[in-house]
Amino acid sequence: MDFSVPTEIQEMLAKVRQFLHDDVYPLEAQFINGRFADLVSALEEKRARVREMKLWAPQVPAEFGGVGLAFMEHAMLSEELGRTPLGHYVFNCQAPDAGNMEILAEFGTPEQQERFLKPLAAGKIRSCFAMTEPDCAGSNPVWMNTTAVKEGDEYVINGHKWFSSAADGAAFAVAMVVTDPDAEPHRRASQIIVPTDTPGYQFVRNIPVMGHAGDGWPSHSELRFENLRVPAENLLGEQGAGFAIAQARLGPGRIHHCMRWIGICERAFDCMCQRAAERDLAPGDKLGTRQSVQNWIAESRAEINAARLMVLQAAWKIDNEGAKAAREEISVIKFFAADVMMKVVDRAIQVHGALGVSDDTILQYFYRFERGARIYDGPDEVHKSVIARRALKGYGVAGT
Amino acid sequence: MDFSVPTEIQEMLAKVRQFLHDDVYPLEAQFINGRFADLVSALEEKRARVREMKLWAPQVPAEFGGVGLAFMEHAMLSEELGRTPLGHYVFNCQAPDAGNMEILAEFGTPEQQERFLKPLAAGKIRSCFAMTEPDCAGSNPVWMNTTAVKEGDEYVINGHKWFSSAADGAAFAVAMVVTDPDAEPHRRASQIIVPTDTPGYQFVRNIPVMGHAGDGWPSHSELRFENLRVPAENLLGEQGAGFAIAQARLGPGRIHHCMRWIGICERAFDCMCQRAAERDLAPGDKLGTRQSVQNWIAESRAEINAARLMVLQAAWKIDNEGAKAAREEISVIKFFAADVMMKVVDRAIQVHGALGVSDDTILQYFYRFERGARIYDGPDEVHKSVIARRALKGYGVAGT
Amino acid sequence: MDFSVPTEIQEMLAKVRQFLHDDVYPLEAQFINGRFADLVSALEEKRARVREMKLWAPQVPAEFGGVGLAFMEHAMLSEELGRTPLGHYVFNCQAPDAGNMEILAEFGTPEQQERFLKPLAAGKIRSCFAMTEPDCAGSNPVWMNTTAVKEGDEYVINGHKWFSSAADGAAFAVAMVVTDPDAEPHRRASQIIVPTDTPGYQFVRNIPVMGHAGDGWPSHSELRFENLRVPAENLLGEQGAGFAIAQARLGPGRIHHCMRWIGICERAFDCMCQRAAERDLAPGDKLGTRQSVQNWIAESRAEINAARLMVLQAAWKIDNEGAKAAREEISVIKFFAADVMMKVVDRAIQVHGALGVSDDTILQYFYRFERGARIYDGPDEVHKSVIARRALKGYGVAGT
Amino acid sequence: MDFSVPTEIQEMLAKVRQFLHDDVYPLEAQFINGRFADLVSALEEKRARVREMKLWAPQVPAEFGGVGLAFMEHAMLSEELGRTPLGHYVFNCQAPDAGNMEILAEFGTPEQQERFLKPLAAGKIRSCFAMTEPDCAGSNPVWMNTTAVKEGDEYVINGHKWFSSAADGAAFAVAMVVTDPDAEPHRRASQIIVPTDTPGYQFVRNIPVMGHAGDGWPSHSELRFENLRVPAENLLGEQGAGFAIAQARLGPGRIHHCMRWIGICERAFDCMCQRAAERDLAPGDKLGTRQSVQNWIAESRAEINAARLMVLQAAWKIDNEGAKAAREEISVIKFFAADVMMKVVDRAIQVHGALGVSDDTILQYFYRFERGARIYDGPDEVHKSVIARRALKGYGVAGT
Repeated sequence: MDFSVPTEIQEMLAKVRQFLHDDVYPLEAQFINGRFADLVSALEEKRARVREMKLWAPQVPAEFGGVGLAFMEHAMLSEELGRTPLGHYVFNCQAPDAGNMEILAEFGTPEQQERFLKPLAAGKIRSCFAMTEPDCAGSNPVWMNTTAVKEGDEYVINGHKWFSSAADGAAFAVAMVVTDPDAEPHRRASQIIVPTDTPGYQFVRNIPVMGHAGDGWPSHSELRFENLRVPAENLLGEQGAGFAIAQARLGPGRIHHCMRWIGICERAFDCMCQRAAERDLAPGDKLGTRQSVQNWIAESRAEINAARLMVLQAAWKIDNEGAKAAREEISVIKFFAADVMMKVVDRAIQVHGALGVSDDTILQYFYRFERGARIYDGPDEVHKSVIARRALKGYGVAGT
Repeated sequence: MDFSVPTEIQEMLAKVRQFLHDDVYPLEAQFINGRFADLVSALEEKRARVREMKLWAPQVPAEFGGVGLAFMEHAMLSEELGRTPLGHYVFNCQAPDAGNMEILAEFGTPEQQERFLKPLAAGKIRSCFAMTEPDCAGSNPVWMNTTAVKEGDEYVINGHKWFSSAADGAAFAVAMVVTDPDAEPHRRASQIIVPTDTPGYQFVRNIPVMGHAGDGWPSHSELRFENLRVPAENLLGEQGAGFAIAQARLGPGRIHHCMRWIGICERAFDCMCQRAAERDLAPGDKLGTRQSVQNWIAESRAEINAARLMVLQAAWKIDNEGAKAAREEISVIKFFAADVMMKVVDRAIQVHGALGVSDDTILQYFYRFERGARIYDGPDEVHKSVIARRALKGYGVAGT
Repeated sequence: MDFSVPTEIQEMLAKVRQFLHDDVYPLEAQFINGRFADLVSALEEKRARVREMKLWAPQVPAEFGGVGLAFMEHAMLSEELGRTPLGHYVFNCQAPDAGNMEILAEFGTPEQQERFLKPLAAGKIRSCFAMTEPDCAGSNPVWMNTTAVKEGDEYVINGHKWFSSAADGAAFAVAMVVTDPDAEPHRRASQIIVPTDTPGYQFVRNIPVMGHAGDGWPSHSELRFENLRVPAENLLGEQGAGFAIAQARLGPGRIHHCMRWIGICERAFDCMCQRAAERDLAPGDKLGTRQSVQNWIAESRAEINAARLMVLQAAWKIDNEGAKAAREEISVIKFFAADVMMKVVDRAIQVHGALGVSDDTILQYFYRFERGARIYDGPDEVHKSVIARRALKGYGVAGT
Repeated sequence: MDFSVPTEIQEMLAKVRQFLHDDVYPLEAQFINGRFADLVSALEEKRARVREMKLWAPQVPAEFGGVGLAFMEHAMLSEELGRTPLGHYVFNCQAPDAGNMEILAEFGTPEQQERFLKPLAAGKIRSCFAMTEPDCAGSNPVWMNTTAVKEGDEYVINGHKWFSSAADGAAFAVAMVVTDPDAEPHRRASQIIVPTDTPGYQFVRNIPVMGHAGDGWPSHSELRFENLRVPAENLLGEQGAGFAIAQARLGPGRIHHCMRWIGICERAFDCMCQRAAERDLAPGDKLGTRQSVQNWIAESRAEINAARLMVLQAAWKIDNEGAKAAREEISVIKFFAADVMMKVVDRAIQVHGALGVSDDTILQYFYRFERGARIYDGPDEVHKSVIARRALKGYGVAGT
């Protein structure tokens, strides 16, 4: 076992942290309270800086215009980027585009890669992933009502999606649709690329979440497909492979999410310690001398360390044995890291007192917009069930 | 011991619940996402209905224009009103006006009551309470920098306040100010009524909280007093009695807050059960059959019942033995009920999945704007310390 | 609502507390580390004192030799008695005899009352309740393998029981047996009185629990019934009424258990505060000044108060509306109070440091032998499910 | 980063696991309920087997008769051994002897090593460590009342110790004594080797813990030193270095403790899954299908993985940067792993129902005798404070 991080990676991470601190943190206040559209040009400047730093699209293979970082390296980078809600965007590895780039790189045809992946990797367009439906529980990944019926060399799509993040302004959606309703459950769905200017594509609204509808990239939209027709060549991978591609997308994607959450934890931990170190309870009597505050700091440190090590171990296992072998580890970190994040953020708020619920710190942003982490990509309960059922199989229990 | 609630009170509560459900819940969506100013006229109509129901200003003595409900009765009413963020406002017993009415009724001169209390009780004006300061920890109630120096028959006030709830649009503030800096700590401050049109009164901003600055009643403002002069007759009660009056205000006030929180718990519990009963995980397979969901429902039921009984017992003790005798009970419910509320709301969100973080339910509003409950009126930690020190006194420990 | 306790009850409780403190606490060390058999004569002296105090068999109707306390009064007494593991025994209202006395008083024939109830109430004999079986989950109360087949005017009983508390030395067992295997599940079992000297009654062993097999009253036995024959008149109540009688026994019985647990909580709370008040961390630096300790004291105070109020409210509801109406409340307190007890005991141990795990305090006894509280009479999980399913019924869900 | 474990280590661990399962688990029942003295000869046979396996005294350098495993290797072995309370004893790396061997190897003179270390490493004698005192809080490591006054070439020792584990039958004690009362706090104490047959050495009692006084190795004794004289050459290391040596002993020692706890976690996890997989709630309806049970399994898996990774990372850091550099990590694992262990054991008990509190499984042993883990070697609260103060130093706070 070796827990060391190569020096050049450490240096890269330190450089990124400094850049974010100096160049990106100052944009946060505007991001939180303003319209994203008004921030785009400022962000483009920062993106230019990232290109200069040779860190643009860090996870994208070089052939498609990225850096091609190794999986573990990108995991570590993702933590740094997670310290600010703008980090991944500025480096062009933000959800949901990052996941779409991954599946296009892995499953896309050369034509699809040329038309959709390259401009995405170049940051010229954005995309979304249309999977969740209001009428079908998201925790049941094989249940959906949106259908794509093949007519000639076209698919005709009808359905209702929501929580399609970043659909507002996206050039195309990757849509999960049922193409084979009579196949076994995990072979019913396919993924189809749907340009958002296709007739029948209806943008209903940006769903207000935690008090904000958002706009542009930071938004979650409701969509309808009404007799929407796309050419059959827009099918991603094979027909019926939708679920398998989604799994391929989600496994490593959860590593990036989790590392992003670790970054959030560290930012919140930082805020908590800073406040504890500076705030007086009475003149000269520091908040940080209080044992309750010390307990929160210590428990947060332990839990963050635990979460990070587990995520890195899962990443290492994916790298060495593949995502399937790491299935249990991936489920573990999904619920564990999300829980740690929410606890650390909550403690940091409490240490700040009234300031902590105000928009004068970043904490309330995490408190509001990261609450979804315990829900999206499988709620805690689903992942716990996955882990338990796999554990029990080792004891001779089938089908629990 | 007798846990029964008189039939006429039960009927009053049922009537209020129905009225809120039919008339006030429909205004919530606009309240959450719009400007308060745009809602005022609709709310005035509802307030007129409350006057017709003879429940206007329920806690205010009849001589000042209210109903004069007994303390326990108002506690129970407060739970019902708490089910919607607009409940207390529509009945004119909202914070911070309710507390101001209480102290004006108890400590105000006839002139102060005529000028400030009566229009407040009539709902013609609003008020605020200016206590918390950005530079002094709110958890230390005897530490503040705002001063009032007596010059002739005037007080000259200088200082910096924030989180003065509802200051935006208030006709007057009750300000906590240091008048006797050399007295023993609990005798240093006084409360002075400050009309907001007094020269030197500066409204700095509505502090954005959890993503919203708010406006009008639902807001939390930053204020500055610069050489602000008010006549000495604006002193509320005696000079040096500021802390004592604040305690008199906060003790029973915490009962109302806590009962309001119980109302929030019941609303969230309602939402949680409704969703569990209706939502399918697969066609015909209800969410409510899942043991995790059942555990949350059961734990919430237990904790809400526990919190309610403790608040009512504290209210009963205040009624029978006075607020001082109930000091421990008041501290207990302050931290216990706030914690229960946040847990129940969080579980209800989780049961709703993505819908739970959206503004399509009221849950996210509670999640965001009630987080402060663990902070204002003394953070959890302060109340726990109060309880422990009082308990330890019984074992012969002085001054811990 | 009225939370007051009548003065005469308060005085009775104070007298009992003093008696236990002075006369019974000193026997605890011997109880914990020695054989019960060696303690019996000392306990008989204390029992004589209780008879003199006119508090013998407090819950038993006067016609059978007891005090006939009202239900709420006995609930309050049960808390006091719970402060020591010997309390209930000394007053002759210990489990399982107390429950057996209750069902014999309610369902027994005059002959059964004469032969079994009166000597039990007089403290001349002891009894046990044989329900749980090693091969059938105790959490499923309608599943058991022990059968009683009627042959002529006898029942022939065969089966295997365990965790029959206090069977060692009992004069008779009340046995739950299946008499009607083809009836609907809740009508299959009956309760039959089995004198322990009946041929076919096999005492297998006292099951070692948490390191001790125990003996006499404090023990949990494994039993076998092999072709054991008892006269049909030993049937308690009607044939097929076993489950209904068990419910009648358990409902109020849970109140007594829960109040006993509250007594344990108060004793542990007492120990915790005493230690915090006396123990130095450094010369003159009291443990009780530490915020972590203060948090535990405050959280314990809150949770104990909450548990007590809920138990008393449940008791009041049973008294006023019957056990069936209070079903939800009974399930709530069963899991809530057990959880509080274990948390308070655990905190008290932590405050004591090494002393806390030693037998030099009573805490380790509670830690060990009350852990079962979350398991017996329905594990936490069963009660939570009961509550949730009843709550969901209100939302139109049948059969969840 | 590399999370792989070398194949030969994996094989060694698998061999040990099998050996323990086949040869040592069967002795547990006798260990739990009987006298240790009666088990010694059976254990000696197993120890002979371990010698044959060439794994005797695995952590002891070869020059003193051990295997000389690398630190990380021994950490991993310690997990395997921890699965049974007899594991470390059978391999001769049990506390407190293992720690004494370490400090004798590092700080002992050749004469001390010859006389005390070699027979210890050979398993011919046992030893104890006398540090904790009843009148001085163990959480304050620089406060003790036992003194050693140098007279000529002897130390005269007076004092009162307790919780000296394994003192019963030990050939010598390593005693922490104050030799330099006027030095700065961390330089006041020294460690002195005290043969237990020295006049003035009084064995008071084995302190009953969780219901058992124990005997021989599994015991915790109270000792008194009355004018006990030992030659000055029995001083271990330098005079005044007692605290430093204790730290040197505790740092790596905590790794072994923590890995032992992980072993306990895995054993309990195993029991939990086994029971969930086998136990019917109704015929054919497995306990493991219940979501509550699945949640416990999943949460336990996550927490155990987290704890193990953190302990291994701390071990790696000690190996690479020294114990001082790993101070924070050591404190983190001390409280985190102990907490995880108690939670996992508690869940495993709950899954077993009544069986779980009985001595028919090993779980109750862990529940009782590992509760001390949150207390000994620094209670949770002390370690949390250490972590927090170190964290806050990074934010410019001195001396908090």
